[in-house]
Amino acid sequence: MNIEALSLTPIALVDPPLLNAGGLHAPYALRIVLELVTESGLTGISEIPGDIDVLEGLRRAAPALRGKSVFDQRALAGVLTAVLGRDEPGARGDKPWDRRRLVHAESALEVACLDVIGHRLGCRVADLLGGPVRQRVPYAGYLFFKYEGAGGPLGFDVDAEATGWARARQAAALDADGLVRQARAMIDAFGFASLKVKAGILEPDVEVEATLALRETFGPDLPLRIDPNAAWSYDTAVRQGERLKGTIEYYEDPVRGQEAMARLRTELGIPLATNMCTTCFEDLPSSLALGSEDIILADHHFWGGLRASMELARLCKVFGRALTMHSNSHAGISFAAMTHLAAALPELTHAFDTHYPWQSDEIVVGGRLPIRDGYLTLPDGPGLGVSLDREALERARLAYERSGLLRRDDEIEMQKKQPGWRFMKTRY
Amino acid sequence: MNIEALSLTPIALVDPPLLNAGGLHAPYALRIVLELVTESGLTGISEIPGDIDVLEGLRRAAPALRGKSVFDQRALAGVLTAVLGRDEPGARGDKPWDRRRLVHAESALEVACLDVIGHRLGCRVADLLGGPVRQRVPYAGYLFFKYEGAGGPLGFDVDAEATGWARARQAAALDADGLVRQARAMIDAFGFASLKVKAGILEPDVEVEATLALRETFGPDLPLRIDPNAAWSYDTAVRQGERLKGTIEYYEDPVRGQEAMARLRTELGIPLATNMCTTCFEDLPSSLALGSEDIILADHHFWGGLRASMELARLCKVFGRALTMHSNSHAGISFAAMTHLAAALPELTHAFDTHYPWQSDEIVVGGRLPIRDGYLTLPDGPGLGVSLDREALERARLAYERSGLLRRDDEIEMQKKQPGWRFMKTRY
Repeated sequence: MNIEALSLTPIALVDPPLLNAGGLHAPYALRIVLELVTESGLTGISEIPGDIDVLEGLRRAAPALRGKSVFDQRALAGVLTAVLGRDEPGARGDKPWDRRRLVHAESALEVACLDVIGHRLGCRVADLLGGPVRQRVPYAGYLFFKYEGAGGPLGFDVDAEATGWARARQAAALDADGLVRQARAMIDAFGFASLKVKAGILEPDVEVEATLALRETFGPDLPLRIDPNAAWSYDTAVRQGERLKGTIEYYEDPVRGQEAMARLRTELGIPLATNMCTTCFEDLPSSLALGSEDIILADHHFWGGLRASMELARLCKVFGRALTMHSNSHAGISFAAMTHLAAALPELTHAFDTHYPWQSDEIVVGGRLPIRDGYLTLPDGPGLGVSLDREALERARLAYERSGLLRRDDEIEMQKKQPGWRFMKTRY
Repeated sequence: MNIEALSLTPIALVDPPLLNAGGLHAPYALRIVLELVTESGLTGISEIPGDIDVLEGLRRAAPALRGKSVFDQRALAGVLTAVLGRDEPGARGDKPWDRRRLVHAESALEVACLDVIGHRLGCRVADLLGGPVRQRVPYAGYLFFKYEGAGGPLGFDVDAEATGWARARQAAALDADGLVRQARAMIDAFGFASLKVKAGILEPDVEVEATLALRETFGPDLPLRIDPNAAWSYDTAVRQGERLKGTIEYYEDPVRGQEAMARLRTELGIPLATNMCTTCFEDLPSSLALGSEDIILADHHFWGGLRASMELARLCKVFGRALTMHSNSHAGISFAAMTHLAAALPELTHAFDTHYPWQSDEIVVGGRLPIRDGYLTLPDGPGLGVSLDREALERARLAYERSGLLRRDDEIEMQKKQPGWRFMKTRY
């Protein structure tokens, strides 16, 4: 089953002005949709974060991928490596999101191959990963401090007619009260049974007080996580960690680098999680030697695909790490892929992250995937179980063209609100 | 694609009186052939070491496996675990071969599932493992000290008419001259470009002198390995290791246990390999902490299948271990499976082990798989690329029935030559 053609569509999804250590989300989140067509006419799809460099790399690689077998991941990865080059150490960058190119391209191609293999076989991607252990996957509600606004053409404006979560999605949340209101609306709409607080941007005291207010409001049965994206100094992380001790399920990337994480982990004695200090297979030996975290937030977009994520799961099991999932703003294709992975993981101890409630657009047939009681049900096969809505895709493509955005840059967006604002590796 | 039926056929393959730390090979090597038929009538096959306990376990599990999806490895493993029980720590046993039950059953089922999936897709098992990196797989010539005899109905008798390797296969080899003659005939017949000496049974001086004689005869360009199967004391291993230093590619299980291996590895500074001290995923953390070996001889029959072996390969790459393949006496189904795995391994730095030249029977259509210039070419798909020769299978099944053997017991066989001989964990 050989590749006949690859089609790459950059799209833009409406995204609200969410605050994070890197700055502020632009009015659109960028994604790339890959469609793979085999010589026999079957189609597989996938979705990755949008970045003009990855997009151009995949476009340059497409001719050399033609005629290659969808089964031959090694050969496909070889072509991508030859065209895009290896991701050098440090290529991830210091910001919350991952800037590596090759891993994104590998993920795009691998997921589309698995989707098309699933179509050929009439089985689900989760079956190709060893079979689903669960039919429903728990996700966490992902809370953000934010400015008022819905993103997209509305920008910082709001639609005063909106109600429920649609209204809360537009509302400002810049303190404990705002975050609690956001959480309540999100739980009402989606039923999440755990919550994550994106931190690292406001004063740490404000962020931690908001987290403690969530505990006060929702009680001890709702696991809470907080993620300052390594923007806190060691001393700040210790001080705030002491306040959070006993309250949080895990403390995600409070400080930067495996050494500091390991030291903090020993000092505080609370579970640490990361998607910033242990982000690739090459990071694992030092992670184990140092003991830098308890939980790895993997992401199949960054770890080279779904099969590599299953290998990571084995590694985590062997070496006593828990594995869960990091999220970027995404549409239904990635949501389905994450859910197939989660379904196939032998052990799933923490609800996956997802930005999905923050998006309102959708590009898959049937529209928004329904999160109920905090769970997404594994889509029925074949493949990923989702297919492209051509009209919606075209709308999202036009939004990309009109947006003028080429890659994520939360610093520029933040400067529109706070002139002169600069990203800092350690802010507090 | 669900399982309709499983068929299990115990077979016996003629095997010569080969010496090893566990004693002496019986006149027949036992295997179990598993045939899996799907509801749609496709067939997948696999082969594992023969042991009445595993055979009966698989037979008990068969009814509960019916109707299960061939994709759903987790569910299939769950059924096997429920029926056979977990392999407890220590279940491997102290002898050169692995006595665990569940891992064998998992391997049997997984390989047959991959074979049938390959048939359905029209692709090779290597494709399902990520795609072949190489089309030809290097194997090492596996030398044994042995008594005169061909095994099978001939027992310790010989066929005086035989020539070439067929003659050498019958000849005694109890010293350096005998082993060099055996090596020369094996290389002439199969073209092996590396050699392994099975040790741990004769006086260590005899075994090491034979190894040094191989170097003398074949020169430094032919990598040599020696495997005393942990039958040597630490002092013996140090003394003989000093003699072998600079001569051998690796020193396989000279001593017993990860601690002794790690100490010896530091003391000698030569590469150590194992299939006895690090034999399952649970062994890996202490292996890494201690540094017990450089090379893991995996075996998909013992590590839970081919996909688990690929996961092990990732682990080995991350943690600086080389990965190669252990062998038991086997027929063409296992030979094909080993070759698909080797073809798909991203890195292959050492020729795989194989007992294959010692067998003369074959149960696959077309008869003996040809080893040329030390390589086996990856069988063309679909699946494993081999299918059962029904007549040959029936002959091997009848040989099993006539043999009266139920499991491997090299101690009993050895006692026929040396009354009162007993297996010893450390002999020299």
